[in-house]
Amino acid sequence: MRAASPWKGSDTVEVLAFDVFGTVVDWHASIVREMAGLYPQVDGDAFATAWRAGYRPAMARVMAGELGWTLIDELHRMVLDDILPRFGLDHLDEAARQHLNRVWHRLDPWPDAVEGLQRLKHRFILCTLSNGNLGLLTRMAKRAGLPWDCVLSAEVFRAYKPDPATYLGVAKVFEVAPERVMLVAAHHDDLEGARACGLRTAYVERAHEFGAARPKDVSPRPDNDLHARDFLDLAAQLGG
Amino acid sequence: MRAASPWKGSDTVEVLAFDVFGTVVDWHASIVREMAGLYPQVDGDAFATAWRAGYRPAMARVMAGELGWTLIDELHRMVLDDILPRFGLDHLDEAARQHLNRVWHRLDPWPDAVEGLQRLKHRFILCTLSNGNLGLLTRMAKRAGLPWDCVLSAEVFRAYKPDPATYLGVAKVFEVAPERVMLVAAHHDDLEGARACGLRTAYVERAHEFGAARPKDVSPRPDNDLHARDFLDLAAQLGG
Repeated sequence: MRAASPWKGSDTVEVLAFDVFGTVVDWHASIVREMAGLYPQVDGDAFATAWRAGYRPAMARVMAGELGWTLIDELHRMVLDDILPRFGLDHLDEAARQHLNRVWHRLDPWPDAVEGLQRLKHRFILCTLSNGNLGLLTRMAKRAGLPWDCVLSAEVFRAYKPDPATYLGVAKVFEVAPERVMLVAAHHDDLEGARACGLRTAYVERAHEFGAARPKDVSPRPDNDLHARDFLDLAAQLGG
Repeated sequence: MRAASPWKGSDTVEVLAFDVFGTVVDWHASIVREMAGLYPQVDGDAFATAWRAGYRPAMARVMAGELGWTLIDELHRMVLDDILPRFGLDHLDEAARQHLNRVWHRLDPWPDAVEGLQRLKHRFILCTLSNGNLGLLTRMAKRAGLPWDCVLSAEVFRAYKPDPATYLGVAKVFEVAPERVMLVAAHHDDLEGARACGLRTAYVERAHEFGAARPKDVSPRPDNDLHARDFLDLAAQLGG
């Protein structure tokens, strides 16, 4: 395991913008946990995977103009309604569907996330930059104790990542040059989008984002400014 | 002094939205303090009053379509440039003007604000609803220790208060009915705007908002759901 050494560019960064689903919170394990409590007859692992798999195609329909601007809560619900029959849950009534859809507000953070953010908060402005809507991100943060300075979302910019309006929007909100913002994410396509806009990038290993049975390749890529094992490692490298 | 008694409607409110300038932070004393340090030859009281007085006319120009959408940071700067000659400060260079304009990011909270918000945070979602821009509100909160769950602003809704889009925007962000949102403010016109949209309202006494020499009439008005001496009294009345 790599020993953390401070990164020389820390002083040039003022804002850390965090991807949320998969980077800060463990959506897969949280949905598996919720399903085990509510519907133990269902394969929670397959259910979580199917629900998340419907997310990008649904966003793509919005971005293609096929759907008007839609909050992620609504996209999650569209996908949920679509997959329920496949898992023998088409009998769920409106209240049960609404409750289940809100699981995305109740996702648990990765074990290192809260402590890492608290350390980083002393030195940097911490904000979210998620496709999740503001209400979802706020309720999630309140429940999980995520100490954001500001909750930013696709909802503010009316564009989903990787639209440049989102990455450049963060720099604009804080009136800083793009290189003074660092995107922290566990997804290379998100980091690529940020880098193309002039932001700094930090990759965080979340090998089990898709469950322990489907480990991700988390090997470092040279394009990122930082590669961190988790948020504690990130804090150590950023001198936080 | 009125003894606080719990308000019966507390359970029906989920979100507290706070006006910021004057309600949470003491802009007048903060600007006087800043001017005393930077430009002691200037009458800080008159300077603070003149700066703030230019704010509404500047917003009105935006709302009338005379100016395009403009962040409050820029409006503050327009007013600042306008009043500097009057106070013998027309020699200030760009860096000095930028620094002085950022005083709005460095406003001090009223003495009860942080503790009151911390108590209220256990029970309610706390957000700002200010005409101030997101960057300003975030930096102010970080410096002052204001524990917002979410920073909302005219910037998100692209409309200034009292435009209904701002009050209803809070309810929409949190996916709740307007009556589950309470606006907390030290200004009756703001509270009236919220009430017209179906929000609950709490008036907070800030008798010295315009300085100790110009006390405001803070007598209760029956239209508000609550009338609080300060945020500690508000927390007591809301059971927080």
